[in-house]
Amino acid sequence: MKRLLRVLIAALAAVAFVPSLHAQTDAVKQVLTDQETAWNRGDIVAFMKGYADSPQTTFIGSTIEHGYRSILERYRKKYATREAMGHLEFTDLAVRMLGPEHAVVTGHFHLARSAAGGGDASGIFSLVFEKEAAGWKIILDHTSAS
Amino acid sequence: MKRLLRVLIAALAAVAFVPSLHAQTDAVKQVLTDQETAWNRGDIVAFMKGYADSPQTTFIGSTIEHGYRSILERYRKKYATREAMGHLEFTDLAVRMLGPEHAVVTGHFHLARSAAGGGDASGIFSLVFEKEAAGWKIILDHTSAS
Repeated sequence: MKRLLRVLIAALAAVAFVPSLHAQTDAVKQVLTDQETAWNRGDIVAFMKGYADSPQTTFIGSTIEHGYRSILERYRKKYATREAMGHLEFTDLAVRMLGPEHAVVTGHFHLARSAAGGGDASGIFSLVFEKEAAGWKIILDHTSAS
Repeated sequence: MKRLLRVLIAALAAVAFVPSLHAQTDAVKQVLTDQETAWNRGDIVAFMKGYADSPQTTFIGSTIEHGYRSILERYRKKYATREAMGHLEFTDLAVRMLGPEHAVVTGHFHLARSAAGGGDASGIFSLVFEKEAAGWKIILDHTSAS
């Protein structure tokens, strides 16, 4: 019975899901474009709108941090001035949809900064997105040096 | 119509999914336990059974690598001897289910090694799992220094 239910779900999901795959991929990419734009005008709060506002939201840098608030505070501390924020660019974005409500994105970031701002920085990220009522949101961000 | 379909899918998924959440989490963790066991007996091929055998499978270390074969070759090259493989341990595993067919796992690894083997190593990982016919498999592994 459970097996039958799973087959039924898969079939229904296929019908509901496939036609909008392209649109979903674009919607996920748009979140990252919006993040770049927000960052490059020095607006960390708007940049953070790309993340799910949840205590479960996770950021992995040199440690594993949980919670939207903690992640926001980390960004605020680490990028306290416009000079420290520099100019952000995401490249090589690859989106993989995991069903209708989740997606994984991999890519590179480059931060162009003055020496006073900390100098240039770059790295690799993988992001897990979840589709919420408010749109696609990052629930896990793993960013590391390249 | 599409909206109705989505509601129907969610309802069916809830019925099929909730009772087995705990079992699924355990099944995902078991893959990592099996990987530790395989690694610690020097069996990289068995260790690799934790990954999806697909060209889409992705490993992020200092670069982004695609494909099961490339990932296997990377492990074979980087850990060519039992001494270089050392003794692997995963800790702080946190599993988050993303619906019935996907999961995200975060955790730490520690590699206890002799100086000749390269010395101890440790780091953080995030893994995306997909449930296949052959069981839960890693489709994305992002591993970085801690």
